[in-house]
Amino acid sequence: MTHTDYLWFNTPQRQAFVRITDEVRSIVKQSGVREGMALVSAMHITSGVFVNDWEDGLLHDFGEWLEKLAPSGLDYRHHRTGEDNADAHLKRTIMGHQVVLPITSGDLDLGPWEQVFYAEFDGQRRKRVVVKVMGEA
Amino acid sequence: MTHTDYLWFNTPQRQAFVRITDEVRSIVKQSGVREGMALVSAMHITSGVFVNDWEDGLLHDFGEWLEKLAPSGLDYRHHRTGEDNADAHLKRTIMGHQVVLPITSGDLDLGPWEQVFYAEFDGQRRKRVVVKVMGEA
Amino acid sequence: MTHTDYLWFNTPQRQAFVRITDEVRSIVKQSGVREGMALVSAMHITSGVFVNDWEDGLLHDFGEWLEKLAPSGLDYRHHRTGEDNADAHLKRTIMGHQVVLPITSGDLDLGPWEQVFYAEFDGQRRKRVVVKVMGEA
Repeated sequence: MTHTDYLWFNTPQRQAFVRITDEVRSIVKQSGVREGMALVSAMHITSGVFVNDWEDGLLHDFGEWLEKLAPSGLDYRHHRTGEDNADAHLKRTIMGHQVVLPITSGDLDLGPWEQVFYAEFDGQRRKRVVVKVMGEA
Repeated sequence: MTHTDYLWFNTPQRQAFVRITDEVRSIVKQSGVREGMALVSAMHITSGVFVNDWEDGLLHDFGEWLEKLAPSGLDYRHHRTGEDNADAHLKRTIMGHQVVLPITSGDLDLGPWEQVFYAEFDGQRRKRVVVKVMGEA
Repeated sequence: MTHTDYLWFNTPQRQAFVRITDEVRSIVKQSGVREGMALVSAMHITSGVFVNDWEDGLLHDFGEWLEKLAPSGLDYRHHRTGEDNADAHLKRTIMGHQVVLPITSGDLDLGPWEQVFYAEFDGQRRKRVVVKVMGEA
């Protein structure tokens, strides 16, 4: 069986990390799937989905690190189209744009510190994540 | 139900980004799966598969950025085996070697700008991507 | 049908790459799934799972490269919590924390050089990887 749902975001800041573990878990419960997998995937190409620690200091470190590896404000070729967000495309590539979460006994099968995050790198507008649950009742 | 197919590549350049959205969609349609997932995964360790924007400037930016983060021509330990492509292994790691695409109502469930690409970092020879479709009719 | 198993690790070094292709293949054989997918995912947020070459020189290159892109010993904000492993969170992000492996005719459907690795960046303690197999007999 399968179940599909969507999460919507509109972050006030251009860049933000939003914890979505509870929202994904809720969709898994609604799905009725007890053994399977949940795909959680950003539908926009300047945002991502990743699993890491729910610790504000580390999320701050991620932001600084991504700015160092994929700086904003460079003379990117992409900006000749009128865009100014090439760095957002690169940053989301490093963080990953999707995760597949195991479902065991009707719940997300996560380790003790695993939390699911939405990573926004070009926000301040409505964007979407698809959650596709597949497995057995 | 499941369905398996393979895409073959032999790029004239050593490094290339090839859009494969239409090929993957065609395999999904052939599969008969209407709700499920499609795994699209490079079978060689110097190529990748990723989702991003179909814009030549940005693809150019990706190439320059990868060369900066994972330069070719360095004195890599891997090259003592006679290989000269260590950077290709690193570059494909940044881009990712696979994606899982949601299938809804018999079609890829992609956002407005999502396109699927094959990323070649050591081309000029025959290489392969596996597409494994799984779900319900 | 689905099948779930776990691999345990306790690496003597803080950082290590451990080949797990055979262990994953063995779990797939036990599962009875002949067509489907196997999710192999680190359950700790300072380790990862990736597919690449089984060549010691290249694995050495990966270690040096990750230290360059995500250095240890910097003044990370995460360390104000008493932790000292922020770099491990970043390194695992670059390598990826999971892979989905296609299963065809009852075996992993891997290319000629594809090997599955567990990547440890903060070891010397017991940590876990989940393997979730899903598909048809």
